Amino acid sequence: MYGAGDVRVENVPDAAVQHPTDAVVRVVRTCVCGSDLHPYRSMPAGSGPAPMGHEFVGVVEETGSDVSTVKRGDFVVSPFAFSDNTCAFCGDGFHTACVNGGFYGAGGVGGAQAEAIRVPQADGTLVTAPVDENSELLDSLLAITDVYLTGYHAAVMGKVDERTTVTVIGDGAVGVSAVLAAKQLGASRIILMGRHSGRTDLGREFGATDVVAERGAEGVAKVRELTGGEGSHVVLEAVGYLPAYEQAYGVVRPGGVISRVGVPQYDEAPVGFGSLFGKNVTLNGGPAPVRAYIEQGLADVLEGRIEPGRVFDRVVDLDDAAEAYRAMDARESLKVAVTP
Amino acid sequence: MYGAGDVRVENVPDAAVQHPTDAVVRVVRTCVCGSDLHPYRSMPAGSGPAPMGHEFVGVVEETGSDVSTVKRGDFVVSPFAFSDNTCAFCGDGFHTACVNGGFYGAGGVGGAQAEAIRVPQADGTLVTAPVDENSELLDSLLAITDVYLTGYHAAVMGKVDERTTVTVIGDGAVGVSAVLAAKQLGASRIILMGRHSGRTDLGREFGATDVVAERGAEGVAKVRELTGGEGSHVVLEAVGYLPAYEQAYGVVRPGGVISRVGVPQYDEAPVGFGSLFGKNVTLNGGPAPVRAYIEQGLADVLEGRIEPGRVFDRVVDLDDAAEAYRAMDARESLKVAVTP
Repeated sequence: MYGAGDVRVENVPDAAVQHPTDAVVRVVRTCVCGSDLHPYRSMPAGSGPAPMGHEFVGVVEETGSDVSTVKRGDFVVSPFAFSDNTCAFCGDGFHTACVNGGFYGAGGVGGAQAEAIRVPQADGTLVTAPVDENSELLDSLLAITDVYLTGYHAAVMGKVDERTTVTVIGDGAVGVSAVLAAKQLGASRIILMGRHSGRTDLGREFGATDVVAERGAEGVAKVRELTGGEGSHVVLEAVGYLPAYEQAYGVVRPGGVISRVGVPQYDEAPVGFGSLFGKNVTLNGGPAPVRAYIEQGLADVLEGRIEPGRVFDRVVDLDDAAEAYRAMDARESLKVAVTP
Repeated sequence: MYGAGDVRVENVPDAAVQHPTDAVVRVVRTCVCGSDLHPYRSMPAGSGPAPMGHEFVGVVEETGSDVSTVKRGDFVVSPFAFSDNTCAFCGDGFHTACVNGGFYGAGGVGGAQAEAIRVPQADGTLVTAPVDENSELLDSLLAITDVYLTGYHAAVMGKVDERTTVTVIGDGAVGVSAVLAAKQLGASRIILMGRHSGRTDLGREFGATDVVAERGAEGVAKVRELTGGEGSHVVLEAVGYLPAYEQAYGVVRPGGVISRVGVPQYDEAPVGFGSLFGKNVTLNGGPAPVRAYIEQGLADVLEGRIEPGRVFDRVVDLDDAAEAYRAMDARESLKVAVTP
């Protein structure tokens, strides 16, 4: 990406093993993330180019000398962040804070919207899947590298269970994934706030019991009405803009939880007596430690319990990556897969 | 209180039963709260007078016709907020959000820095204690009406247990109470950030294993050093000013909890990627639902397991209430008890 709206597909040096703990993976399928749209909208011209993409499934091509858990030819899924899976923070289940970890497309590590990618900390990061590159499960496997397990992280941090009423803010791919995750964790009442009927329809199929199209004060009033005036035990915020945050503390029940997985596009926000403190509201969430959940997610996909890949409504060739961004930015597509 | 720095003791109409669910309690001992110092520092002249005080123990003088759990002559302790103890939010353990509840000194309910006080929702609020007004436990009983159980709430929301490293920010009465509470919940490593040695000494007696006198970036670096560079699992923020909040996200470990019980004197604060989100930090806390904890606190005091009344270092007569405020504001006293 060269700047806002300026995505180019170019030849770069081949991905190669640089450290003994690296692997190189040939990308079979990748995609564009909602978070990729943030720079697509705001990246200053001239500040790039930046390699893009952090979601992929693929086949191991080469491994460094210290890599022992994957080998050439293995089909693998990768969390959107790499991690050693052995440090104290990984041990806590917060792999996105790994002391040896990082994010694709940053710090000299390439992006996944590419033919191949270098994976640092391959032993701690990559998980093999017993499928081949023609599998019908590719979309769902790709979904567990980020979007579905990001929604799942929101639901886990929100402590969703069968006793909680859940409100999901945002009908993007993460939002509807959060609905599916809340359903998996047992929630029986799931309110989805969104106004794009194609997306909220998928949300209903994933488990939403109510859809609220209104926003702002009107949307808050509607959710409060649906919850007998009490508010929602858990709010999963899957947008990242301040109005969504404000909506969240408007609908949350006293003592409830606002769990954020939309990357905040703001630094400061209300946290005082009138927003969080007075109601004893818990605010949490962050970059999903997908590695902590991916083995369970993989089993759920392989055994057919979930079909998170349904968020993909289009696939393009790598050469058409710019079109994938355009279509998602224009909301013509919910989520676009990209095949190298 | 008539305005900042302007506390007067005046004759007002006697407290009386107004609703069938009310009781009138003769105040045996009350005190000044750290939160009372906020208006003492900032209340605009002419916006008062406001009745003050919300912590008290006393003897029931009169009860409304619907009151059945306490009777004239009972010695009682009262949480700093009244509540029906039956609504959905009370059922959740968040009595400070009670639909029929409220705070003393507001909305037509008198303050506790008085000879007597009307207690709404007496059945849901008051808890009898098997002592008389000459008990040597009066200070500790008074401490469980707010200050100790506010520290306890911080520790509960912070999920303190024997595996968590705890950092307490603030060496005021709530801060040292939070140390005692963290110790009660099993924490073995408790770092107290404060620089008034008389107070931090009490903190050490209550269970603090380390004291950090430095503030700001220097204080953050010191706590990080003490925690092997990893940060503190739990931060109990018992101050309420923005620098304390900033210190909190500086010292918290990825995936950790910042639990606030200092009433925020700010509305907006950093919550973005660089403060809370990137580290998956949980922010919670709020007005302590003392009613949820007071029976356990009472048992702990009566059976000698804790002595939270040690936060009181002075007692004055009600006529000298202004002096109590002055001494606490000037940090000459940690917490001042007041006897009518």
